[in-house]
Amino acid sequence: MSHSHTIDQLQEALRCLPGVGPKTAQRMTFHLLERDQDGARVIAEALQRALKTVIRCKRCNNFSETELCDICASAKRDPETVCIVETPADLEAVEQTGAYQGMYFVLMGRLSPLDGVGPDDLGFGRLKGLIESEQINELIIATNLTTEGEATADYLHELLQDCSVNITRLARGVPVGGELEYIDHGTLTRAFTDRRPW
Amino acid sequence: MSHSHTIDQLQEALRCLPGVGPKTAQRMTFHLLERDQDGARVIAEALQRALKTVIRCKRCNNFSETELCDICASAKRDPETVCIVETPADLEAVEQTGAYQGMYFVLMGRLSPLDGVGPDDLGFGRLKGLIESEQINELIIATNLTTEGEATADYLHELLQDCSVNITRLARGVPVGGELEYIDHGTLTRAFTDRRPW
Repeated sequence: MSHSHTIDQLQEALRCLPGVGPKTAQRMTFHLLERDQDGARVIAEALQRALKTVIRCKRCNNFSETELCDICASAKRDPETVCIVETPADLEAVEQTGAYQGMYFVLMGRLSPLDGVGPDDLGFGRLKGLIESEQINELIIATNLTTEGEATADYLHELLQDCSVNITRLARGVPVGGELEYIDHGTLTRAFTDRRPW
Repeated sequence: MSHSHTIDQLQEALRCLPGVGPKTAQRMTFHLLERDQDGARVIAEALQRALKTVIRCKRCNNFSETELCDICASAKRDPETVCIVETPADLEAVEQTGAYQGMYFVLMGRLSPLDGVGPDDLGFGRLKGLIESEQINELIIATNLTTEGEATADYLHELLQDCSVNITRLARGVPVGGELEYIDHGTLTRAFTDRRPW
């Protein structure tokens, strides 16, 4: 609570950002007003522009400014491989490796009954339609290896196993640079189970 | 780097917030676009409203929506005591104690030659004018106990010692709940030097 209603409103508004509590919101507010009013202006404009121009790609469900996103519209990508990720941030992480040249489908979430997120909210029907209408060879399920991500992967596998498409998933095991001594039991067990010929 | 220029611009804009690096900016951007577009709209509007309506109080230099802020305009506050703080956040911290009923003067910074902040940037002249033109009994210097805050306090004391006003400063010592074993040497030394009769 400051002594200005407008400042209180700004602090309250900033609290909807992830990881921002009352103290951080106050620090951000005073920083912007005291030392970076230009920055505040740029944020406000960038937010409004993004709200106006960012839509969903009609094919992969990722954020895009055009009906088809850059990746879906690119002739250089392999249209026969589709990688299913939970969020745009996951997609960016995969893109940054440069190791994948196929297409994506972004669920924009994961199954989470406690939060009321079911299969209908994640566009599973749309994904199935995509697989049936296009020539897709391989479907890589790349949800997170959390409980909810794994549940989503299992559900997807169940849903899509009748489709004539190879379903694969990311390898699970010891991370690069990992030392066995410090790896958790679950990961080490998985690394043994999934061991591969040299 | 996402695949949308607008999203990149928003991420870049959010990085001017204190403590926000590229990863956090990405997380905030995707959070707002995926799950809280209303929140994004509210932030943008709150920022623009604040930029338009928040000005400086002509007496105490704090943020205000009116020429004189609530505190300076209040008849319930003691106009003969002025507390000098570095920032509006410091003022809020003092206000939240409820222990102080006087007026304030907000420097909006501290002396910091390395950042190019000198006496002229902190409204020292205006503060001196205030002391000379009004009936002020006591001036409480409540800058932070950092190197820069202490330098600012020393400079202020030097500047104002010819004025006919009592200059005091906050007590320094062991914080409430503090255990001597874990208090730093400087604080403990100060607590001994400044010890008071029971």
